Amino acid sequence: MPVAVLRARAYLSRVAEPPAPGLAALAAEVGAVEAADRVRRGEVSERVAAETAARRAVERADADLATAAAAGVRLLVPEHPDWPGEPLADLAACGVPDLAPPVALWVRGPGSLARMCVRATGVVGARAATGYGLHVAAEFGAGLVDGGHTVVSGAAIGIDGAAHRGALGVDGPTVAVLACGADRAYPAAHQGLIARIAASGLVVSEYPPGSVPARHRFLVRNRLIAGLSAATVVVEAGLRSGATRTASDAATLGRPVLAVPGPVTSGVSAGCHRLVREGAVLVTRVEEVLEELGPIGAHLAADPPGERRATDALDPVGRLVHDALPAREAREVGWLAREAGVPVGSVRVALVDLERRGLADHRNGRWQLRPERLRTGGGG
Amino acid sequence: MPVAVLRARAYLSRVAEPPAPGLAALAAEVGAVEAADRVRRGEVSERVAAETAARRAVERADADLATAAAAGVRLLVPEHPDWPGEPLADLAACGVPDLAPPVALWVRGPGSLARMCVRATGVVGARAATGYGLHVAAEFGAGLVDGGHTVVSGAAIGIDGAAHRGALGVDGPTVAVLACGADRAYPAAHQGLIARIAASGLVVSEYPPGSVPARHRFLVRNRLIAGLSAATVVVEAGLRSGATRTASDAATLGRPVLAVPGPVTSGVSAGCHRLVREGAVLVTRVEEVLEELGPIGAHLAADPPGERRATDALDPVGRLVHDALPAREAREVGWLAREAGVPVGSVRVALVDLERRGLADHRNGRWQLRPERLRTGGGG
Repeated sequence: MPVAVLRARAYLSRVAEPPAPGLAALAAEVGAVEAADRVRRGEVSERVAAETAARRAVERADADLATAAAAGVRLLVPEHPDWPGEPLADLAACGVPDLAPPVALWVRGPGSLARMCVRATGVVGARAATGYGLHVAAEFGAGLVDGGHTVVSGAAIGIDGAAHRGALGVDGPTVAVLACGADRAYPAAHQGLIARIAASGLVVSEYPPGSVPARHRFLVRNRLIAGLSAATVVVEAGLRSGATRTASDAATLGRPVLAVPGPVTSGVSAGCHRLVREGAVLVTRVEEVLEELGPIGAHLAADPPGERRATDALDPVGRLVHDALPAREAREVGWLAREAGVPVGSVRVALVDLERRGLADHRNGRWQLRPERLRTGGGG
Repeated sequence: MPVAVLRARAYLSRVAEPPAPGLAALAAEVGAVEAADRVRRGEVSERVAAETAARRAVERADADLATAAAAGVRLLVPEHPDWPGEPLADLAACGVPDLAPPVALWVRGPGSLARMCVRATGVVGARAATGYGLHVAAEFGAGLVDGGHTVVSGAAIGIDGAAHRGALGVDGPTVAVLACGADRAYPAAHQGLIARIAASGLVVSEYPPGSVPARHRFLVRNRLIAGLSAATVVVEAGLRSGATRTASDAATLGRPVLAVPGPVTSGVSAGCHRLVREGAVLVTRVEEVLEELGPIGAHLAADPPGERRATDALDPVGRLVHDALPAREAREVGWLAREAGVPVGSVRVALVDLERRGLADHRNGRWQLRPERLRTGGGG
């Protein structure tokens, strides 16, 4: 992964407020480095110019990468194998500007987003959930994990939190997509929960480090929950709510929407009931969700679920350094530090760990990737 | 209405245990009188012979009509204009033996079944209903009446009773289809409720007077609830329950099935949820039921709802006598008594009332129908 690409994507990540359909399309068309250069020079279409006018002079890529790294956050770019390309492809393909794909994702945690999204289900719902809804969300969170799924949600109070906790309770993979920087924790009451998610799963955001959770960003964020998930389950939602917006996004992407019913006397079940009346699948048990998802997960399966990669257990800095390691021509630590955007001291620590795992080789102070055929599997 | 037809249908009503598809088809093909004669003589197909073998010698037509009349019950036959022919036609048309149409219906109450079924909705559900379910059933019962519908149900404990009570609470029309004789009240705890239904609506049964509510009759009865209703709403039902059977019958008849959701943690909502998953329409409010039914009611409308007939307000004996009155050749009271199967004294009382209402004329001690063109509309 050339650092030039990371820097370009970091720049693009800050230069436009998502969703930025013009910018996303430009980067996909000409590549991130060229797109960033054109934006800097102002040699772009009117649409991209409008998207980037306010911030095109903001050159904070290196600073953002460093801030991120310090907080354990790394920049995941479409050029990286961990990018969930297939799940997110529908965001561009659907042609809806509001659902434009992100130009990059800032992620925190040990998980590989691509692999976590091979079988991922969004579980979303009301903040003002009832005890009934929280119970169902936690059951679904745990049950989805038992069924081999990653639970994707928004870390909000209420249904989101219960779904994440259900997954964490059975030591399962869960992804929290935030409406603020991945280095932050919002809502504050979920600081501990978000830290637990970052410790075993992934905290994801398209907003650069330090970004605040502005109101409109919650709705914009929802398209990523829908996009990363093979299907979206709504557990309690008001008629006009963020969760029904996520469901609507999922439907636009051609993904199944599933809804949990509740008493017709409950306002926070009204959104679920309307979704069912509009075509969503009513689900009462996790088995029914899995039944709906089986073939879809299989369809999206770039990797068979459960297959492990040697890089799974790396910490964020380890990944950056690993990504920077050349396959053929061995390089010095200083070169790797520049390429990975990581301080020299941290690179040295990471290289020792990579060597221990059988992922890196060195000779005469120069490092490179250990060829696949020589790998022992290493420690875990 | 020739009394010979009434007697024949009364005989057919007792000669076979419903559903009796062979017998129903025979009566439809050759007429009730001829069908009864053939059954008596044993000159029938193997199928009809099997249906009627056990009881073909039971000649209780007159006794049943008298017992019924004494209890305020009249025999409604397919040859009568009050027969809900269009709603029930699907029972024969669907070709499912278990859904064979009744050969006659014993009815108690002032309503015209045909007119009540122009816009009729079945509301059925669990005996072991929750407070939530009872609340919703009562709301739907009242709301359907407000929307111009008759509420059809089975007078059972639980959802059925709540639906009837909801309708009665707003002085609306409601039909109770029983699994025992229409002269009886089952369950005993609903004796008062069934009496109230008979006082303003209709209590209906295909079983002759005195019939006991044998277990299998509840399921057999359910096809009539489905058949009399333009649509069936299920409010709480277990997975394998009478209410889901009614829903299944309705679906077989091509009628919409609507189901009210509830908590997924409630066993008596499980049947409703399964119905929705299998294609039933989820409904949360009466307005949604009415929305579903509007065009169907219109389609079934043999009579515009609300149009009154001069015979609407007659009591059961008055109806029998009215039905016996010849249109052309005037007859004596003794003849009418035999024809109507009503004691002479009762016939005299009824004739006075019919004359007062402008429905009967007499000359030289002989009575006949007053021609339509001479009717004044009478009292009501």
